[in-house]
Amino acid sequence: TIQSYEEEKQYVGFATLPNQVHRKSVKKGFDFTLMVAGESGMGKSTLVNSLFLTDLYKDRKLLNAEERINQTVEIIKHTVDIEEKGVKLKLTIVDTPGFGDAVNNNECWKPITDYIDQQFEQYFRDESGLNRKNIQDNRVHCCLYFIPPFGHGLRPVDVEFMKALHEKVNIIPLIAKADCLTPNEIKKLKDRVREEIDKFGIKVYQFPECDSDEDEEFKQLDKELKECTPFAVIGSNTVVEARGQRVRGRLYPWGIVEVENQSHCDFVKLRNMLIRSHMHDLKDVTCDVHYENYRAQCIQEMTRLVCERMVKSLKVSLFKRLPLEFRASTLLSPHLLSVNWLRTTGWRVPSPSCLCPLQMWTLRNSSK
Amino acid sequence: TIQSYEEEKQYVGFATLPNQVHRKSVKKGFDFTLMVAGESGMGKSTLVNSLFLTDLYKDRKLLNAEERINQTVEIIKHTVDIEEKGVKLKLTIVDTPGFGDAVNNNECWKPITDYIDQQFEQYFRDESGLNRKNIQDNRVHCCLYFIPPFGHGLRPVDVEFMKALHEKVNIIPLIAKADCLTPNEIKKLKDRVREEIDKFGIKVYQFPECDSDEDEEFKQLDKELKECTPFAVIGSNTVVEARGQRVRGRLYPWGIVEVENQSHCDFVKLRNMLIRSHMHDLKDVTCDVHYENYRAQCIQEMTRLVCERMVKSLKVSLFKRLPLEFRASTLLSPHLLSVNWLRTTGWRVPSPSCLCPLQMWTLRNSSK
Repeated sequence: TIQSYEEEKQYVGFATLPNQVHRKSVKKGFDFTLMVAGESGMGKSTLVNSLFLTDLYKDRKLLNAEERINQTVEIIKHTVDIEEKGVKLKLTIVDTPGFGDAVNNNECWKPITDYIDQQFEQYFRDESGLNRKNIQDNRVHCCLYFIPPFGHGLRPVDVEFMKALHEKVNIIPLIAKADCLTPNEIKKLKDRVREEIDKFGIKVYQFPECDSDEDEEFKQLDKELKECTPFAVIGSNTVVEARGQRVRGRLYPWGIVEVENQSHCDFVKLRNMLIRSHMHDLKDVTCDVHYENYRAQCIQEMTRLVCERMVKSLKVSLFKRLPLEFRASTLLSPHLLSVNWLRTTGWRVPSPSCLCPLQMWTLRNSSK
Repeated sequence: TIQSYEEEKQYVGFATLPNQVHRKSVKKGFDFTLMVAGESGMGKSTLVNSLFLTDLYKDRKLLNAEERINQTVEIIKHTVDIEEKGVKLKLTIVDTPGFGDAVNNNECWKPITDYIDQQFEQYFRDESGLNRKNIQDNRVHCCLYFIPPFGHGLRPVDVEFMKALHEKVNIIPLIAKADCLTPNEIKKLKDRVREEIDKFGIKVYQFPECDSDEDEEFKQLDKELKECTPFAVIGSNTVVEARGQRVRGRLYPWGIVEVENQSHCDFVKLRNMLIRSHMHDLKDVTCDVHYENYRAQCIQEMTRLVCERMVKSLKVSLFKRLPLEFRASTLLSPHLLSVNWLRTTGWRVPSPSCLCPLQMWTLRNSSK
């Protein structure tokens, strides 16, 4: 007890900081936006319902083949507020019905990439605006992409879709409806998909590196998780009786498929990863990598345009100062003045590297 | 167990989100910037050392009266990396030696407000810049202001100082060197200071409202904390023996003052508040209130200037289109054209409310 007293005396108390953060985060509540993409009938809605144990699709109307042909890809948002052990989550599911259903699927991912960009653009406007108190963040944190279980690996449309999205969102590829594949077939398909993802340079969501100071059990789980991708999943909205217990599952004449049985599919692994261990990291990667890339591109583009405009007006001003006989020459017009020549005249010619949105403000401050 | 199994089945797992946040915050580490202000000899350095149990001022050189007269207020930063129970904290103490020491203390807070503004400005530049990955955040999260224990309440310089800073930083007023006051005198001085803070409209740091769902003990502590301000503190760098234990204290012929004895002073309350319960809130208020106010002012000012410039160039363009006899009149020059008149010509005249730093980018997008 003397030692603990001595320790207590040495205790400043900032070790409580993570708890203060914890407390505040509970108070504030969480939000998460999940996109699901893949052809109709891949079990997207069922999987989402199984994951979050809610019925997000009560009012859904299924379309027949004819309707589906004419249907363009549309984006549908479902938002639900759920609470668990005092933790509040505003969950938004972004659905993309119609994707890949057409006969010609050229650029069918365009509405989806546009949607993701629009959310980034809105957030960029909001966070650059004057009042930032109540910004609604609709950025997409994760996209579950459903690969069909039939076929021998990725189809061209899968490759194109993922390549169109992989620098905008965290893609987690799934093998849909895995109850139609034997364990051996699943292994083969997974290997094939992994190989092709590598081969085509597709960047799916990377699980963060495990800290070296983690315990062995955690490291083992992390390793299993990484080896398991792409997750082979089965969803079910019905509860069946298996081994004397009522479980989510599918009743076949040859047996019962249990959604949450780890020897039947990777549903539990996916849920643990997506919700219980990596949800916060998915949000962080969205903000720190995907959004920052988008923002940097926007600013570079803005800067280039402002620069062009400034150089143009500089040329016009300078042109007006040239001797009249020079200007009268039909051979010379302002845009023929080269930037290098402008520089030799001693004018400060703006270049993109020296400009930023705060340029004006900076200039003002330095000229005071 | 049947019930717990049923509960387990209903458990999605997002209740782990606060733990994911907790985990990430530990991984990332914390930083905190504390400013101390008040006349020399008020025990600022001793208190900081007592609070964080470090020696931040090893190399300090004390100045004599003559040196202090000529000394201007300067800002000195001490940074120390400390760790406790695996939680890392980068603590920065911003010291303001020389404040209030001069004979004429007119505007002696100017270097201090300038310093706080500079940190905001730097952060504004950084967060508006292209690469935001490694932004160093030097914003001041809290200012401990030391009120002298002698005197009957606030002095004019105290009022002026706090009013100059209260919209830029969280001020926590302290009654310094409280071991020279009897409990009765402390009570009187606290009442007086509280009254005057009210009377002069000084906004010191407000402890956040207690949640209604907190337990009674927490509510009681929160109430005591709020009633206790301004904290009367005593610091000590020396360890003395009191009641058979070695404690931080001050040995007087008439007894021992124990820094951490709650019946002697409010040191423990201050430490609990500043470090163990409200450190994260101090950071949040800094970012969400003080910095946001600064940023909004900056943007409004930028916008006004850009607008003025645009209106001016619009006037010049328009002036050039006026009939020559009109322009030749010595009575008319571009700046005499009124904004209202410009509007009647059908030109879109920019007004501050319609402009923002992203204006240019917006214009581009809408004209595509």
